[in-house]
Amino acid sequence: MNRNLTKDRIFELSALYREELLHNILPFWLDNSIDLKDGGFTFCLDRKGNVIDTDKGVWQTGRFTWLLATLYNDVEQKQEWLEAARHGIKFLENYCFDADGRMFFIVDKKGNSVRKRRYLFSESFAAIAFAAYSKATGDQKYAVRAVELFKQFFRYNTTPSLIIPKYTEHRKMKGMGVPMIGIVTAQELRKNLVDDSFTKLIDQWIDEIKQDFLHHEYNAVMETVGPNGEFLDHFDGRTLNPGHAIEGAWFILQEAKIRNNDPELIKLGIKMLDWMWEIGWDKKFGGILYFSDVKGLPVQEYWHDMKFWWPQNEAIIATLMAYQLTGDEKYAHWYQLIHDWTFSHFPDKEFGEWFGYLHRDGSISSDLKGNIWKGPFHIPRMLLNCWKILTEIQTSEIK
Amino acid sequence: MNRNLTKDRIFELSALYREELLHNILPFWLDNSIDLKDGGFTFCLDRKGNVIDTDKGVWQTGRFTWLLATLYNDVEQKQEWLEAARHGIKFLENYCFDADGRMFFIVDKKGNSVRKRRYLFSESFAAIAFAAYSKATGDQKYAVRAVELFKQFFRYNTTPSLIIPKYTEHRKMKGMGVPMIGIVTAQELRKNLVDDSFTKLIDQWIDEIKQDFLHHEYNAVMETVGPNGEFLDHFDGRTLNPGHAIEGAWFILQEAKIRNNDPELIKLGIKMLDWMWEIGWDKKFGGILYFSDVKGLPVQEYWHDMKFWWPQNEAIIATLMAYQLTGDEKYAHWYQLIHDWTFSHFPDKEFGEWFGYLHRDGSISSDLKGNIWKGPFHIPRMLLNCWKILTEIQTSEIK
Repeated sequence: MNRNLTKDRIFELSALYREELLHNILPFWLDNSIDLKDGGFTFCLDRKGNVIDTDKGVWQTGRFTWLLATLYNDVEQKQEWLEAARHGIKFLENYCFDADGRMFFIVDKKGNSVRKRRYLFSESFAAIAFAAYSKATGDQKYAVRAVELFKQFFRYNTTPSLIIPKYTEHRKMKGMGVPMIGIVTAQELRKNLVDDSFTKLIDQWIDEIKQDFLHHEYNAVMETVGPNGEFLDHFDGRTLNPGHAIEGAWFILQEAKIRNNDPELIKLGIKMLDWMWEIGWDKKFGGILYFSDVKGLPVQEYWHDMKFWWPQNEAIIATLMAYQLTGDEKYAHWYQLIHDWTFSHFPDKEFGEWFGYLHRDGSISSDLKGNIWKGPFHIPRMLLNCWKILTEIQTSEIK
Repeated sequence: MNRNLTKDRIFELSALYREELLHNILPFWLDNSIDLKDGGFTFCLDRKGNVIDTDKGVWQTGRFTWLLATLYNDVEQKQEWLEAARHGIKFLENYCFDADGRMFFIVDKKGNSVRKRRYLFSESFAAIAFAAYSKATGDQKYAVRAVELFKQFFRYNTTPSLIIPKYTEHRKMKGMGVPMIGIVTAQELRKNLVDDSFTKLIDQWIDEIKQDFLHHEYNAVMETVGPNGEFLDHFDGRTLNPGHAIEGAWFILQEAKIRNNDPELIKLGIKMLDWMWEIGWDKKFGGILYFSDVKGLPVQEYWHDMKFWWPQNEAIIATLMAYQLTGDEKYAHWYQLIHDWTFSHFPDKEFGEWFGYLHRDGSISSDLKGNIWKGPFHIPRMLLNCWKILTEIQTSEIK
């Protein structure tokens, strides 16, 4: 298993990611999820791609729209992709907003609201969709909407009274999700709207993660802490989500790359990856475990030892990026471990796309292809990112 | 495996349940969960009984208090049990009520509210605790409080505007939980307060289950339906919870027993058990599966194929009660299947009490002994009920 990442292997992997993205994942969703009759996308698909629930998740609608516009911007100006992105944008505009400007979480086939939630991730995913679509079309209206949504995400998450907390004032908590999604959303808007003013907020959120979520006694990135980073010695406060923290690590490594390989940011991202790989990598069966307790106590969430598709995808990106930035063979080794485990367990060789929900040992728990949580996002984003990174590594070697 | 339920076996099982209840389950909680310093109970325990989260679940507080008072009423007038029940009652009274009369869901070690939920199951469990304690002590004050809480449970669940729904008006839903908990709560209050006026409500709730939750095309007890029993062809509407429906089945069989073996109620309870055993019993590994899709499609909940402690306990009661009421050997067989599977997988031979969370194949997923969901309730209620039923069967044979 301790193979070197040879030039041949880099070339081979780069071709594999491109192939998997453009000829497996993307066609599965383009063929099965576009609702031509009522607009938007139906992401709740069985193994073969049949729609098994006509409800439409707003997160996935924003994310797929972002992916399509990003492929148009970064890979090839295919009209099919731009058309499908426009189809998503129209549905977001027409059906996914409440009268108060907030977005829904689920709408039904016809676009009637089914569920709205307290927090604002529908908004952040719609913001990156609007920003990428604005770049693809040159239509400034969508740049303006992206910024509005981003500001709304920021305002709600920084104004204590706006989001009714789930817990009382006796258990104040905050999660890694907000600064993490804040960083990556700001990165997307900065890139597609060509506006460096987002960098200040990225700095703030990175500082927040560094100050409040890194726990130097436990060598762990906490998922939930008190308002000022206090350790909460309860189930919620102790529960770690290694795949999520590793995703946060590569958002920071990506920022390091953008800032000419900023050494402080590399150090921070690498530390987060090192800590959470140690906690999350399953030494018995391979793959990244879902949850872990920072003190090694039992976790309360029932699926703690399952292997979901997305933590593996995030770990593939993070380890490859760590290798690119440091040249340390340790990361080439980890990258190949997680790449091999993921590609040998998740892809559905018979009906295409990937399974999402495996037991700890890698056996299939559910052959569902999509739902309100799993859609065309983590897998294609990983494939696109790794294809790009491997191409950069090849290019730097040719120079 | 097709053993007959012989007289010897009945005697042996009856002794086993009594022993397990009084010398394993009960001491585990009495020894480890009573908080003498700050009141109430700490149910979040690791395998050895160490407190790993000091938060106090209000559901379990009501349930344990109910159990202790019930053991005092029905098994033996032990002062230790009455004292522990009083300890629970005091904590419920002093710390578990909000200013609006609603109850909390979680309070911290000192009794500060941590979480309050929209629905009213804290109230139903406190109601049965107050009722059993009123009977144990003869203190009418607690009978009055039990009735008040029951009325609150009823009022909130029958007045549409009082509970803010999770979903919008485009996806109106109702769950089996309300009529089921309604029936068993009313049965408890009727028994302990000696008040037959509860019977009318029990009839209404049984009718609601019969009319709205039984699906004769799928031969299934639905968990979630539209306001008038409409089938909702979405993940939520299709998801069955066999252990929960089987629990509902024995609440109805219990009502049949109380009504001199009412044949219509026996027929209804048996049908629910027959249908849901067929769906829930895992033919491959044994035990009752957590969730199933009524159309055989993939389930969205991640722990769908796990084996939790409580569905097994409910199925043991239901199958034994079905055997008692019908004399049909099929139920003696099912009862022994589920008894054997449960007793060979869940009890912790080393540190006492039972594991709660197993994988599908019966291996341990988490060795947690208690949390806000798992406490001294389903297991001791099963042991007490089955001990009673087996004694009734023995007695009827002696006559």
